[in-house]
Amino acid sequence: MTITNVSTQDRRFKLNAGAGSDAVHSDPVYSFAVTLIRLDSGLSGTGLVLTMGRGNDMVCRAIELLGQQLVGRDIEELMADFGSTFRKLADDVQLRWLGPHKGVVHLALASITNACFDLWAKSRDVPLWKLLLTLSPTEVVQLLDLSYLEDVLDRAEALRVLEAELPARSDRESILTTGYPGYDTSVGWYQYDATQLEQNIKRSLDNGFGAFKLKVGGPLKYDLSRAHSLRRAAGENATIMFDANQQWNLPQALTACEELRAFRPLWIEEPTHPDDIFAHQTLAKAIAPLAIALGEHVPNRVISKNYLQADCVRFLQPDCTRLGGISEFITVSLLAKKFGVPVIPHVGDMGQIHQHLVLFNRIAIGHPEEFLECIPHLSSHFVHPANLRDGRYQTPQEPGSSADLL
Amino acid sequence: MTITNVSTQDRRFKLNAGAGSDAVHSDPVYSFAVTLIRLDSGLSGTGLVLTMGRGNDMVCRAIELLGQQLVGRDIEELMADFGSTFRKLADDVQLRWLGPHKGVVHLALASITNACFDLWAKSRDVPLWKLLLTLSPTEVVQLLDLSYLEDVLDRAEALRVLEAELPARSDRESILTTGYPGYDTSVGWYQYDATQLEQNIKRSLDNGFGAFKLKVGGPLKYDLSRAHSLRRAAGENATIMFDANQQWNLPQALTACEELRAFRPLWIEEPTHPDDIFAHQTLAKAIAPLAIALGEHVPNRVISKNYLQADCVRFLQPDCTRLGGISEFITVSLLAKKFGVPVIPHVGDMGQIHQHLVLFNRIAIGHPEEFLECIPHLSSHFVHPANLRDGRYQTPQEPGSSADLL
Repeated sequence: MTITNVSTQDRRFKLNAGAGSDAVHSDPVYSFAVTLIRLDSGLSGTGLVLTMGRGNDMVCRAIELLGQQLVGRDIEELMADFGSTFRKLADDVQLRWLGPHKGVVHLALASITNACFDLWAKSRDVPLWKLLLTLSPTEVVQLLDLSYLEDVLDRAEALRVLEAELPARSDRESILTTGYPGYDTSVGWYQYDATQLEQNIKRSLDNGFGAFKLKVGGPLKYDLSRAHSLRRAAGENATIMFDANQQWNLPQALTACEELRAFRPLWIEEPTHPDDIFAHQTLAKAIAPLAIALGEHVPNRVISKNYLQADCVRFLQPDCTRLGGISEFITVSLLAKKFGVPVIPHVGDMGQIHQHLVLFNRIAIGHPEEFLECIPHLSSHFVHPANLRDGRYQTPQEPGSSADLL
Repeated sequence: MTITNVSTQDRRFKLNAGAGSDAVHSDPVYSFAVTLIRLDSGLSGTGLVLTMGRGNDMVCRAIELLGQQLVGRDIEELMADFGSTFRKLADDVQLRWLGPHKGVVHLALASITNACFDLWAKSRDVPLWKLLLTLSPTEVVQLLDLSYLEDVLDRAEALRVLEAELPARSDRESILTTGYPGYDTSVGWYQYDATQLEQNIKRSLDNGFGAFKLKVGGPLKYDLSRAHSLRRAAGENATIMFDANQQWNLPQALTACEELRAFRPLWIEEPTHPDDIFAHQTLAKAIAPLAIALGEHVPNRVISKNYLQADCVRFLQPDCTRLGGISEFITVSLLAKKFGVPVIPHVGDMGQIHQHLVLFNRIAIGHPEEFLECIPHLSSHFVHPANLRDGRYQTPQEPGSSADLL
């Protein structure tokens, strides 16, 4: 059970015209900086983070620099105190300067972390969600680096949150058989015209989806016209969300949100720059009760804490391929629970890993059952692609985190 | 005057034992990810950003990816509207995912930006400070990307700030002959013992310095003992500062600041995690009138704006080798001016470029005359090392930004 090798792969996938496009990322090449961690037994764990293509090689290089420190470790011993290893890697005395805890080095750490969890679940021959649910609250907390959260969520408080949920867990396990609901992001990419949008929604409705996201952030007239198409095609009772992908500045966001409000969206996503906590605070107050969602560009637990303290995010969208991997995702989910904010992950992993994590969040942390983003464009590249039926993620049964690529 | 080539160099410099050490960075290898931009005339501009060694190659790689877009541009045409080019590079539709506006890609942008300014000044055969002082307020604003600052500092407001200072500029030009004061960081690295600390301070006093920084963030007893040595060696009238380099969490910072207060430091620097705006806000209120300084790990103008809005930083320490280069440094200096906060740069460039920028800040923006950090360890590697006399930076006279390496 000893790690003998850590390696990396630079995988890039060309998408069909318009797929993945938003107001900011006009030419995405969905790419994974992959970590492969091998045991002496031959078993291999796979970790992913998403990039948009160019620069994926830099994340791979950072994985090489950081990952070597794991060679020689026993996987069970490593995961029995993963929080310590995470902190040691995150605070590498030289690489830390390049973040800290953000950007290329933190994406690399995420890929490594995700590979460790995948390998750990495979070595126990269970799906990741099942492994996580067998852990005691103490074992979960041992996975986490809670440094710089002492004012809100220290070790004792994290334990308390998890222990308080123990009695109600069994009542929530029915989600494992019903499957976790999904929502469809792939209908409404920015470069899709009204015809394509309406065709996509029709197909998605046929596939059982009842919730849809639309990329906005263009000229307001363009956004409004497409919002109209979306609402008309999806129906009055459908749940719809708008995603500006950080395109607006604060004055633009104030204007656009007022106009888009008429379409009754569940949220406005990433209305402005992801570093601008106070702009989001101002906006949230101005547009209430219209809700703000964000998280896909919040790189770590510290900034997540600040967003929650600012009381401006109604739906938190952490991503284990943006945060430092699965362990920091769990940390942020605990933080969100403390602040009473639902967690609806952004799926840089195309939902493969997060389909496990939302089950843990629901059952062990007691987060409400929401829905998980669905982006199926890379399905054909996974060994075990997420299995959606009637708009719900069917609970994965294969060992690991479903991250293996063909 | 056309750019024909953009290249990069990975330069790493081993320091003497203990030099550069702090509570977090125990084994620094001061390194520069260098951008070289060449004109058809053969003239070459040099841009620098600092790293701690490992990973410097990733910044060089990002420079390669971003820098090619400048080939074929005329330097005067480029700098007549540099703000637009900056935004285009910062928002590269694929590389942006790796930040945005932080980490490896933003460090690369800083190195490129700094090379553009160096080349521009050389092509006009003047030192950078002189070039910047000959620009009209409009020309200065054209250098800047003010996006996402609209709520505080739009184009009109930036112009107004600069124009308001025009009448008083000539009164401030005496600084060009007296030289800008320095303070000495190199006396008090974390791994220097009391004897070495006292020897260093004695030598520094002999060299005309009257202000000294001490690295703290160790066991409190160690910090207090060294603070005592510093105060005794420097004298009761010396200005002293303590720098924790992000080591403390909030509870630790609250305790340590209360203890260190007795030594009458001008500031406590980087008391906790650089992303934790609300922790700094809490701390600032708790320890007032003791002041907080930070900035070296604030990657962009948006987070700088948030820190200023949070009213918790008494001395802002932006660094043109952390922010996206000289232009974003000027943007942040304008922001700080609006909030009435002095700018005392962190010198990732060892002061080479910032000795120009503090002159611009003093004369054109009307910032108070403070002092500039001094770290002489790489002096022997520069073509024109900063020239300090009686503890003051002597105004550089060579064309460019003084960034050329031997």
